[in-house]
Amino acid sequence: MESAVQSRYFEFLRIPSVSSDQGKLKECCAAAMWLKSQVEEMGFTARLETRDFAPPILLAELKGENPAAVLVYGHYDVQPADPLEAWETPPFEPTVKDGRVYCRGAQDDKGQLFALLTGIGDYLDRQKVKGAPTPTIKLCIEGQEESGSPALIKCAPELRKELAADILLVCDTSAAADLRPAIVAGLRGVGHFTVRLKGPNRDLHSGEYGGIAPNPAQAMAKLLASLHDDEGNIAVAGFMDGIEAPTADELEAAEKSAVTVEALERDIGTKAATREIARKNGFEPTIEINGVHSGYGGPGSKTIIPAEAIAKISMRLVPGQSPRRAFECVKAHLEAHLPKGMVLDIPEQAEGAGGFRLPLASPVFRLAEEVLDGMDARGAVFQWDGASIPVVSVLKEVSGAAPLIVGWGQAEDRIHSPNESYGFNQFGKAREWARRILENV
Amino acid sequence: MESAVQSRYFEFLRIPSVSSDQGKLKECCAAAMWLKSQVEEMGFTARLETRDFAPPILLAELKGENPAAVLVYGHYDVQPADPLEAWETPPFEPTVKDGRVYCRGAQDDKGQLFALLTGIGDYLDRQKVKGAPTPTIKLCIEGQEESGSPALIKCAPELRKELAADILLVCDTSAAADLRPAIVAGLRGVGHFTVRLKGPNRDLHSGEYGGIAPNPAQAMAKLLASLHDDEGNIAVAGFMDGIEAPTADELEAAEKSAVTVEALERDIGTKAATREIARKNGFEPTIEINGVHSGYGGPGSKTIIPAEAIAKISMRLVPGQSPRRAFECVKAHLEAHLPKGMVLDIPEQAEGAGGFRLPLASPVFRLAEEVLDGMDARGAVFQWDGASIPVVSVLKEVSGAAPLIVGWGQAEDRIHSPNESYGFNQFGKAREWARRILENV
Repeated sequence: MESAVQSRYFEFLRIPSVSSDQGKLKECCAAAMWLKSQVEEMGFTARLETRDFAPPILLAELKGENPAAVLVYGHYDVQPADPLEAWETPPFEPTVKDGRVYCRGAQDDKGQLFALLTGIGDYLDRQKVKGAPTPTIKLCIEGQEESGSPALIKCAPELRKELAADILLVCDTSAAADLRPAIVAGLRGVGHFTVRLKGPNRDLHSGEYGGIAPNPAQAMAKLLASLHDDEGNIAVAGFMDGIEAPTADELEAAEKSAVTVEALERDIGTKAATREIARKNGFEPTIEINGVHSGYGGPGSKTIIPAEAIAKISMRLVPGQSPRRAFECVKAHLEAHLPKGMVLDIPEQAEGAGGFRLPLASPVFRLAEEVLDGMDARGAVFQWDGASIPVVSVLKEVSGAAPLIVGWGQAEDRIHSPNESYGFNQFGKAREWARRILENV
Repeated sequence: MESAVQSRYFEFLRIPSVSSDQGKLKECCAAAMWLKSQVEEMGFTARLETRDFAPPILLAELKGENPAAVLVYGHYDVQPADPLEAWETPPFEPTVKDGRVYCRGAQDDKGQLFALLTGIGDYLDRQKVKGAPTPTIKLCIEGQEESGSPALIKCAPELRKELAADILLVCDTSAAADLRPAIVAGLRGVGHFTVRLKGPNRDLHSGEYGGIAPNPAQAMAKLLASLHDDEGNIAVAGFMDGIEAPTADELEAAEKSAVTVEALERDIGTKAATREIARKNGFEPTIEINGVHSGYGGPGSKTIIPAEAIAKISMRLVPGQSPRRAFECVKAHLEAHLPKGMVLDIPEQAEGAGGFRLPLASPVFRLAEEVLDGMDARGAVFQWDGASIPVVSVLKEVSGAAPLIVGWGQAEDRIHSPNESYGFNQFGKAREWARRILENV
């Protein structure tokens, strides 16, 4: 990588633009403004769309002579860095080791997005030298993807004309193992919320009150345990209704690109929860406990009955599930199973967006396969990703564009975990992909 | 209260002697040394027994002319003050409001202990004026009661001769409602431990891995939920074996002194877990979750599968249960119910001590009833306390003394909770009780 590109990439990474933390709004604004100046230097006309107190959305356009229009989506916000003590290098100081850059956001999505922008720059430079025409290129880069994209989802319908395009280019996913190119033919949706149980009006002495007062930590355990049966299947009435099962072609293609059980177990260091990796991760929903907290957690003991308990819960959704209905089903379940003596409330909720799948036969997939065959003799695989980019289904609808979701992540990148990283080889692939796909539009 | 007494009481309260926090060992030593100088001023010969890195045990003796010996037990350590934000006044700054002192330890046990010592001083002064003989008075005051008294329990057998006495006086419990005197005829035992589940080798992205990787927060919920059945009964095999049921006399006396369901519900601000208050709190064991922590707990969301989960668990035990066997039963249960993909370990464990009950017909109870009748025309009630003073059963055995457990706590004292307090009237009762019982030994 040229040193000028690397130094701009590192500048971008150093901005701790964590969207889930309201206290980091300033840093999110700084990241948006930094990006705006970058794309203006590339010749784009850019503006920041700000809604309420949300991190701004960067909207930019470079008019081309071609009738085609390509919309590029990405996000500059990142996951929180905690647990901080698990990082081997400072989370917001890019550190190079063995051909990889270690930093929160090194991959997700600052790294992949910046590689894409660099590739677009490469393409524009080449066309300029050749005096060749270009399609119109539009950018929509937001700062709330890790928080469910509420502002962009809300204002996207008003930007219908501004976002109209033929292809929606997204680089926020992973390649297959060994960097074999992967086209994402589907994504799960996501919604999340916080559950709080209040029991006694204060922490109680567990001797004076033990056996006669209800315990919110215990009640929360019962309540969370009730969400799944003993085999790990979701036990929430109505939640699974209407789910669109994969076609035989889809399942076959997904199994080809899925990680093996053995590789997954090596990666996570423990037993897999299932042997049906492709089906479970690509085509089935989850209800996942992201955190649970109640009472004492320090050294030694504190013999109390805690006054309350909270749980952070997220759902991954598949086509056929409405995010609103999925949440309502879980809420109804929690209310129906609420242990005695507890008051339930849901102090935070993000409805999120549904999942989607694209037909395997679409022309944009044929084009992408051709370009990717040129980059890698092994050819591309199709994936149905377990992760979510909630806003993509919304952008797909308002822009009228066919989503082309090709990313260059690898499991070793450890996105969302401490010590996130991105390889220079991966950055190079993402950059090359952006140039090549624009050359073929 | 005389201002000299109050100022010494407040001095004692200001020392943040939290025994569960190794970082507060210095403060525990300061409290022990402060007490040593107090009792030396009263004429006692005192020494600090130190074991390993435990808070020191104050052992003191004042030889008397009477052949009888009274051993006084108390503790100078207190519960941690957190959650700090719930305190209306600083937790270690005694604040007087409406005839009550607000401070961590204002009651448990610094307040009750200091009242007892003040009463002993009153008694000694009177006897001196009268030129009357006194029994030998021994003190054993430790700094680890809130952590299960491991050091004192360990060294007590070696102190058999030093601790030998006829009566063991303990003031670390509550009176009945409206300060009616209560004699504790039984205490539950206690043991506690920390359970940790390790799943994946790091926090995982809940989209990329959701549905295919095991979730420790979810696994912990299942595991903790399995400890009780849906009616709240303990579901651990072997745990309830051999429990000694109360006699009809005991149950009848316990029901007389027990709080009503209505009063309990007003006190805790929610539904009681049972209507059988006396039986459940006095004669049945519990397995209580004091805390559970896993994954994210901050604002917004962090869509992860956490790498691990911990739970802090305590058990209250009744006669017939061995603390070691009770723990082994829970451990075996946890191992037998361990969800797939999890590694279980128990990084901390305190075996604690068993519960005990004294026969209602014992002569020391007759003596106490007589003294208490003189203090309160309503007479004394007998209680079987749900709380534990693990070391009392050990001291009972090594000293050969009959325990006389009479305390002056009230529910409104909120011990172990934020805004702990102790009324001047309660302090006065405890002080008077100490003087009167010594006058009658």
